[in-house]
Amino acid sequence: MRVKEFQAFLQEKKVDASILVSIGMEPDPNFFYFTGYEGAGALIIPQSGRPLLLAPKMEQERARKSRIKSVKILEKKRLFDSVREHVGRAKKIGMDGSALALNAAKALRKSFRKARTIDVSRKIRELRTIKTMEEISYIRRSCREADSILQQCLKNFREFRTESEAAAFLQHEALKRGLDVPFRPIVASGKHASMSHHAPQSTKLNKGLCVIDFGVKVKGYCSDMTRTIGIGSVPPAQRKKYQKLLGVQQQAMASATDAMKCSLIYDGVIRALGKDAPYFTHGLGHGIGVEIHELPNLTISSIDRMQKSMAFTVEPGIYYPKKFGIRIEDSVLLATRPEQLTKTTKELIII
Amino acid sequence: MRVKEFQAFLQEKKVDASILVSIGMEPDPNFFYFTGYEGAGALIIPQSGRPLLLAPKMEQERARKSRIKSVKILEKKRLFDSVREHVGRAKKIGMDGSALALNAAKALRKSFRKARTIDVSRKIRELRTIKTMEEISYIRRSCREADSILQQCLKNFREFRTESEAAAFLQHEALKRGLDVPFRPIVASGKHASMSHHAPQSTKLNKGLCVIDFGVKVKGYCSDMTRTIGIGSVPPAQRKKYQKLLGVQQQAMASATDAMKCSLIYDGVIRALGKDAPYFTHGLGHGIGVEIHELPNLTISSIDRMQKSMAFTVEPGIYYPKKFGIRIEDSVLLATRPEQLTKTTKELIII
Repeated sequence: MRVKEFQAFLQEKKVDASILVSIGMEPDPNFFYFTGYEGAGALIIPQSGRPLLLAPKMEQERARKSRIKSVKILEKKRLFDSVREHVGRAKKIGMDGSALALNAAKALRKSFRKARTIDVSRKIRELRTIKTMEEISYIRRSCREADSILQQCLKNFREFRTESEAAAFLQHEALKRGLDVPFRPIVASGKHASMSHHAPQSTKLNKGLCVIDFGVKVKGYCSDMTRTIGIGSVPPAQRKKYQKLLGVQQQAMASATDAMKCSLIYDGVIRALGKDAPYFTHGLGHGIGVEIHELPNLTISSIDRMQKSMAFTVEPGIYYPKKFGIRIEDSVLLATRPEQLTKTTKELIII
Repeated sequence: MRVKEFQAFLQEKKVDASILVSIGMEPDPNFFYFTGYEGAGALIIPQSGRPLLLAPKMEQERARKSRIKSVKILEKKRLFDSVREHVGRAKKIGMDGSALALNAAKALRKSFRKARTIDVSRKIRELRTIKTMEEISYIRRSCREADSILQQCLKNFREFRTESEAAAFLQHEALKRGLDVPFRPIVASGKHASMSHHAPQSTKLNKGLCVIDFGVKVKGYCSDMTRTIGIGSVPPAQRKKYQKLLGVQQQAMASATDAMKCSLIYDGVIRALGKDAPYFTHGLGHGIGVEIHELPNLTISSIDRMQKSMAFTVEPGIYYPKKFGIRIEDSVLLATRPEQLTKTTKELIII
């Protein structure tokens, strides 16, 4: 995706080539963004011309199916030796400082003693914020799948005895459809809901408000949504908070416009929450794409601005410690207007 | 875990304090090892005295439930600013070079312009090899759960039409019990079994030998086991290979003694396999703990030695390309003697 824009940046910065390496259990997001390939390897993006993917022999089938047309399969040679063969004469090299661990960076630099290195991670993360048509279609599908699985979960909710069972249902449905989940589903009932990142437990579902935070991946692209439902009965005061938060969330989504500072959307939420603002303890949202958390940041200190074709979440929440919590989250695309991509009802469902 | 031993190392190396940072979606293993905390944050381990955990406000409940007694919740301040406040005068600082990305390392170093930094990742990985009583109890539970789920899977095996269904069953059972899986279960039937890292497919289960590799996590601690079963009928020649490999595996487990070179256990397997040795194409085993693959390495080139209270796998396999494959794996604890922790039968089950 957007290789040409990245090469224009390399030309502007007089960088001969950029080297992206993926060697861990999970593919590095910037590497995956350009390659669509989940195996280990190195990607060399020269200032102009075709990018080259170096991959080990055991990954050759996957590598040849990647987005990159020039693929070289390594027989025995070590990855960094092969990288040096291809860009050994470069004077200025781009590296991904957000992905490369300190020890791996040291090893890579040994291959390029005479070259200067610069960090290109921020640039790639910025490029990634503006989604292409292809990426938008994957994100739409990802949101549709998440909606469908969540609705199936809500239909079956009476059958679950524990948070774990509800969370397992969500993940299992995704697995059965051949989809990964970008994070373990959160099911936080009763006072557990006051922890925004609660890990589901094998204890009986608590009565009261229950926060369900779930997403899937389609072709590597994430969806993310949260619904808060009621189990048994919900006290009127908590219902009132729910309605208030829902209004705040909808207003925040609608307020996003091209070129707007992301921090302003956050500010609007703080104002609208009024005396509940101290109980809103996390960011308002984040970009979604090949990562579940990417740019732009919708936080108080964000330096990002909204742009058309950005995909992001809007997820205000209020958490009364040891009492209850509410979060409402949608995945949103900034088209001509903000378009809500996750569509499961936000009426307070009582189960 | 083993904070005192780590502090002794810091004293010996004249390191004032070590800083471990976890900022990704997944907790960094070394950070998790000391904290038992899965959220974002920074851990400061001074040369002596109490370690300090810095965590963002949204994680305060989880942070307070962590292993670390001194917790400081950050109100607004940025993580690294707070780190500097606490160890700003340090002259020599330990960092985790295997976990910390280049940019984070740079930012952290800015907080300590005058300090030297050293990489402490190898030391922590070494400390992690010797399990405490608490860790052993988690690993035992993890193995018991894996046994119980695998046995349930075997009982239901006739109901599965595809490898994916069998693999989804294993993962779903784990999820229902509130347990994570450290890797996607492997179910490789017929000639698929000749690929040691085969990804389960949605095609019909093949007849013949079928390799099932599965583990779970309890309190963050991994189990890992493999059984090879027969579907339909298994030719006598393959049964013979199975019995031979089983003998080799049991002998290898029994051979582990304190202070023994891990590479020697591997050598013993090669000798015992005889003419089948060329078909054994991977390592013999690996440590298990907060990671599914950790030290010690049971490979030909391993520099590690067996020590009491190490937990590791013993998993010889033979793979006849495009024909069949067999792997038998147990999780093992080196107590006074090697103790097999995963206990599902290794008699060849035919389903």
